[in-house]
Amino acid sequence: MTENDMHTLVLTLAYDGLPFSGFARQPRRLTVQGNLEEVLSLLFRRQIETVCAGRTDAGVHARGQVVSFKVTPDELRDRVPSLMRSVNALVDEHIAITAIQKEHAGFSARFDAKAREYRYFISLSKQRPVLLTNHVWHLGKPLDTDMMEQASRCLLGEHDFKSFCTAASAIGKPTKRRLIELSMYEEQAFGEDVVVLKVIGNSFLHSMVRTMVGTLVAVGLGKKQPEWIEQVLVARDRNAAGQNAPAHGLHFWKTYY
Amino acid sequence: MTENDMHTLVLTLAYDGLPFSGFARQPRRLTVQGNLEEVLSLLFRRQIETVCAGRTDAGVHARGQVVSFKVTPDELRDRVPSLMRSVNALVDEHIAITAIQKEHAGFSARFDAKAREYRYFISLSKQRPVLLTNHVWHLGKPLDTDMMEQASRCLLGEHDFKSFCTAASAIGKPTKRRLIELSMYEEQAFGEDVVVLKVIGNSFLHSMVRTMVGTLVAVGLGKKQPEWIEQVLVARDRNAAGQNAPAHGLHFWKTYY
Repeated sequence: MTENDMHTLVLTLAYDGLPFSGFARQPRRLTVQGNLEEVLSLLFRRQIETVCAGRTDAGVHARGQVVSFKVTPDELRDRVPSLMRSVNALVDEHIAITAIQKEHAGFSARFDAKAREYRYFISLSKQRPVLLTNHVWHLGKPLDTDMMEQASRCLLGEHDFKSFCTAASAIGKPTKRRLIELSMYEEQAFGEDVVVLKVIGNSFLHSMVRTMVGTLVAVGLGKKQPEWIEQVLVARDRNAAGQNAPAHGLHFWKTYY
Repeated sequence: MTENDMHTLVLTLAYDGLPFSGFARQPRRLTVQGNLEEVLSLLFRRQIETVCAGRTDAGVHARGQVVSFKVTPDELRDRVPSLMRSVNALVDEHIAITAIQKEHAGFSARFDAKAREYRYFISLSKQRPVLLTNHVWHLGKPLDTDMMEQASRCLLGEHDFKSFCTAASAIGKPTKRRLIELSMYEEQAFGEDVVVLKVIGNSFLHSMVRTMVGTLVAVGLGKKQPEWIEQVLVARDRNAAGQNAPAHGLHFWKTYY
């Protein structure tokens, strides 16, 4: 069988990050990839290895994570019609497959992704937002979001985002990325006001969204001037930026192909 | 000290119902009232017993539960200024006190409540709404909400709601209640579509909202005709109604004084 006879299956995943040691497979740890591949390998009766649109850290949630893996024409015919139901019945209850799609053999959830969208949820409420505890960052203080939006403008477009990348991950790797959108809006979840940062980029460095959010929040709290963001960007040094916003406020929202 | 020298403290509470065996105090069980009274008794250095606007069952959440208890003028002066912070620091992490108010001695969170509002959250999504698992009823099927709203009209106003009350709780007790509003709307929570039933009444019988929701859902699913709701109401028999909707979709939203 040649590569041309194969197909690529593409699964869209939602998950609650709380119980997982992140997305990427690790020995003896509950991970999203590990659990999913175990289920797929069981259903396909062979070892399945998946590629994903964006690895997420422990505690980070997803609504639009995408994974892909190759299947033969026989597998496509025999296994795929009932696959969504079978996978959803067998994966950990904190994961849901929301779509399955067939692509050509060369397709990759990772390399064909044109852009990724993340949303970061913050509660400004003084009291604990008890229903949202594991899904938003409970900042508990007022934020000047206009100031943050103004300060964030210098990040749009193509830049070297080394300052916003976990230092160890940046060593010897390209750190240029293109930020397409960074906007803020407010919404309610179970009656609780939350501020949402919507971030779209071609791809993201390790911890890039969380570092951007943490750095912008320092401006929104009045601890730093808006001009500081540009200084952080040009420094190309992780030490120049603010603290990472916590993982549990981050949601991998959508992958664009 | 006479009754006139006393004051009533009124606390507004939010809680995630998941870890609790309901609101009402029970020996050797984690309950909202039990946990709160333990903390209040510690802070006031005497046994505090609270009265609430509406007891909620295990798994039911609250945004606007209200409890009250009496305090002396001395306690009001010494303990109350820092009380909100102290209580929030000591209560279970799934409870938050969102407001504290002083009222006259005769005030009761229960008897002075003019109306209670509940909201019931339903997810129609075929796939598990992984971020909402403990806070919405995952019905997973389409609902005809127009039909439900039409069917619910006969419930508005004052009626004997015996059919919508846990049979054992109705024995020998008045079962007349006044339903003030029953409406439906859609919203998003973390990007997930949910249908919300908003229900306001002067007060509610045990399981009344959950039985109403479960009964209306039978109409919304097309299992029953809209006219059935009126037949259920006039039967004055719990066996005439549909199943209780699950506890974890129910939120005690607000108390009106």
